Amino acid sequence: MLLLRAAAIAAGRRLPLPRRGCSRLTPGNPAAGERRGAAAVLAALLGLGAALAYGERRRRVAQAAQAPPSRRYPRYTREEVGRHRSPQDRVWVTHGTDVFDVTDFVELHPGGAEKLLLAAGGALEPFWALYAVHNQPHVLELLREFKVGELSPDEAPPDPAAAQDPFAGDPPRHPGLRVSSRKPFNAETPAELLAERFLTPNELFFTRNHLPVPAVDPGSYRLRVEGPGGRVLSLSLSELRSRFPKHEVTATLQCAGNRRSEMSRVRPVKGLPWDIGAIGTARWGGARLRDVLLHAGFGEERAGEWHVCFEGLDADPGGAPYGASIPYGRAVSPGADVLLAYEMNGEELPRDHGFPVRVVVPGVVGARSVKWLGRVAVSAAESPSHWQQNDYKGFSPCVDWDSVDYSAAPAIQELPVQSAITHPRPGAAVPPGELTVKGYAWSGGGRDVVRVDVSLDGGRSWRVARWVEGERAALGRAWAWKLWELRAPVAAGTEVEIVCKAV
Amino acid sequence: MLLLRAAAIAAGRRLPLPRRGCSRLTPGNPAAGERRGAAAVLAALLGLGAALAYGERRRRVAQAAQAPPSRRYPRYTREEVGRHRSPQDRVWVTHGTDVFDVTDFVELHPGGAEKLLLAAGGALEPFWALYAVHNQPHVLELLREFKVGELSPDEAPPDPAAAQDPFAGDPPRHPGLRVSSRKPFNAETPAELLAERFLTPNELFFTRNHLPVPAVDPGSYRLRVEGPGGRVLSLSLSELRSRFPKHEVTATLQCAGNRRSEMSRVRPVKGLPWDIGAIGTARWGGARLRDVLLHAGFGEERAGEWHVCFEGLDADPGGAPYGASIPYGRAVSPGADVLLAYEMNGEELPRDHGFPVRVVVPGVVGARSVKWLGRVAVSAAESPSHWQQNDYKGFSPCVDWDSVDYSAAPAIQELPVQSAITHPRPGAAVPPGELTVKGYAWSGGGRDVVRVDVSLDGGRSWRVARWVEGERAALGRAWAWKLWELRAPVAAGTEVEIVCKAV
Repeated sequence: MLLLRAAAIAAGRRLPLPRRGCSRLTPGNPAAGERRGAAAVLAALLGLGAALAYGERRRRVAQAAQAPPSRRYPRYTREEVGRHRSPQDRVWVTHGTDVFDVTDFVELHPGGAEKLLLAAGGALEPFWALYAVHNQPHVLELLREFKVGELSPDEAPPDPAAAQDPFAGDPPRHPGLRVSSRKPFNAETPAELLAERFLTPNELFFTRNHLPVPAVDPGSYRLRVEGPGGRVLSLSLSELRSRFPKHEVTATLQCAGNRRSEMSRVRPVKGLPWDIGAIGTARWGGARLRDVLLHAGFGEERAGEWHVCFEGLDADPGGAPYGASIPYGRAVSPGADVLLAYEMNGEELPRDHGFPVRVVVPGVVGARSVKWLGRVAVSAAESPSHWQQNDYKGFSPCVDWDSVDYSAAPAIQELPVQSAITHPRPGAAVPPGELTVKGYAWSGGGRDVVRVDVSLDGGRSWRVARWVEGERAALGRAWAWKLWELRAPVAAGTEVEIVCKAV
Repeated sequence: MLLLRAAAIAAGRRLPLPRRGCSRLTPGNPAAGERRGAAAVLAALLGLGAALAYGERRRRVAQAAQAPPSRRYPRYTREEVGRHRSPQDRVWVTHGTDVFDVTDFVELHPGGAEKLLLAAGGALEPFWALYAVHNQPHVLELLREFKVGELSPDEAPPDPAAAQDPFAGDPPRHPGLRVSSRKPFNAETPAELLAERFLTPNELFFTRNHLPVPAVDPGSYRLRVEGPGGRVLSLSLSELRSRFPKHEVTATLQCAGNRRSEMSRVRPVKGLPWDIGAIGTARWGGARLRDVLLHAGFGEERAGEWHVCFEGLDADPGGAPYGASIPYGRAVSPGADVLLAYEMNGEELPRDHGFPVRVVVPGVVGARSVKWLGRVAVSAAESPSHWQQNDYKGFSPCVDWDSVDYSAAPAIQELPVQSAITHPRPGAAVPPGELTVKGYAWSGGGRDVVRVDVSLDGGRSWRVARWVEGERAALGRAWAWKLWELRAPVAAGTEVEIVCKAV
């Protein structure tokens, strides 16, 4: 598991962070060396067990090898694979188009059984993106011994009208996501995986949908751009890609409801019961909204108060599309890095993340980063949509559902500072000796997090966490989270109340 | 006292605020009418008493009037006036160049004895700026009856070298300021006066000096502007006023140590024991720093990370001037409104506030708004001064004076959200019936405060405060505080724990 960090640093293009806090963990650090040694011994012991099981399987494979070489494997759909998520039902995973039954390996997994079970029923690739130690030939070889089948070719999604279910056309999802709601689909990254890697793998990135996922044909897709003072544009996907320079921004998106379940522990609140995983970081690629607005002739400065309204291709049963808006100043500002994105972590946008084009508004609540973008409209007013006018607003604690007046509060734009603990999980047993605490920290508004304080005694005393990963950013453009870690000795048998606070 | 608000609104150029919170106090509001009625009765009763005392004094004045009309009054210095600050020592005040003994009027003062005593020993003008009800002919007439002398012409300040006291040349200050330190002079506005008026009168504006106040001859004053990529400027005061358009900005300045005394109640901390008054709001006038930098040829954008360093004419015994810096991007940004100010609330800068020129950096900690500005230098590094490098930085609670490493933390620039209660004062008796709570709210970074919540039960339940005064501002340029108020019924004999929280 320790090799993952060295591999991630080696593979990434990021510069090491400047010195923060008390000390910094680096591959050359003596403490890191000790930990690698311990991990190697553990891996060796588990490897021995794995080797024994491996030897047995090799024997059986050698027998099977006497069968004709063009062995045909049974075909399985992703849905069928998804039913095999526990030792009782067998634990199946996929890699590429191959299906594997890894039930007998679960307890031998060097990373622990729990970690492997997070992938159960789905693809291994996003997990191997988090833990690069798997990207070695012998691991694939080991895996091959567990092959039991192959994936059927993906079927066209059913027609929602025919299925009489507006959500029938939704794309398949990785079973490893923690689901709050299926229809519409709302799910988050498992908390223990959040801080394992700076960029969140697409398949495990939190998904927050208000409506069914639209099925968009990329060939006939057109993005409409219009408004007073500019000419109307109708851009195809290839025009968007070729006419405007591609700009890349590493940005964290967070749902306004992230960590809501913690609020509900104080006082029950309505809304999706997100844990700490309604947040993720990706390298987004697309056209600058600024470039598109200027190309349409809207100008850098507009007298008075203007807004840029976004409409999605997802619509409610009455036909009203999801909509949101941001102030014109942010939309056209070079330093605000607002994108009309068509790439997510180097791949085309997945359907759940807005294929073919979505807005990405760095530093601002996720709700304004409209997915399945259909229309951009410059307007003298904010978006009239329900989600801009009567949702995503904050009120006094004295306000309740019977007294709320949405017109009396402004729409949420920039989010405040945030941090969370991804490891250990609440209630976990604390191993005697040294405790490792891990987490993420981020602020809206492009404001750099300069420090994370961690307390192990409920806030009575504090220590400074060290940075594990982050990206250097220009002043006011720190759009991405930073991952932090604290290691501290703990006495056996003590109860530890961990608090984190980002500055 | 109620007439003050109507008068202030009538006199000011500000637009009424848009509706916030539950309701808004306006002159036409029925609740306001009731309160005016009650105040009128009270004033009438006190007026009767005042009229009786007035009648007696008229009799004596009529007697004195038989004396020759060219009566010569004794002359007093401001220092002498300043010794008469209590009924025992007599209560003296000045208005213009006249000195008045108002001891017999203190208990008859419609605004209460305490309020009048705040002005004791000094000029009435700043208090009459806060309470415009005084600006009526009959009030001046009443005051004249108490005249006992005239001010000596102001003397030139003593020479610090001759007096062997580096602070001997400091200007006179209003005795009404609450002093934390005399040398260097550090004093704040009395808390109960802070929220009485949107603009803080110059004489009562908090003063935070690190060093003696320099004596600057405006005729020979030259502001030096220099740095790589620009030509050197040496600007006289009249050149600064005439060569660049005057830009006005209403901005609140706050000391980083404001409210420190509240921290010390939790854990003793070093530093000036400010109450809640190390903050004030003024209309500043001057040249845009942007205009001066562009005139010197520095350019709108500079590749890499640049800073603009400010040096004051105040210097420590070793000769090192007070210094601070801000990032170049903020210095040159039109929307950041950074000024080289020579006016404060329509008057030339008082000596304690930086005469003849100071920097004003809206939304940023007061320490960067360098007074008695001598030099502006564009630089690839932050200011090397002690106060930029080894002061005005934040650390983890686990850091103390023996372990602090200033190089590990960034210099404070934008301040966070802030609010405070100016009335009632801690420990005050709560009158039965309706309790009025007043205060101010502000955020650094030009971020608009959208709401203030107030609790009367230590945070268990909350109410929304209403806005009393503020200025509408463009998005991201809300540089000035907002004054708020809450009125709520309270049962007699209850203990009330008031908490305020700005959003």
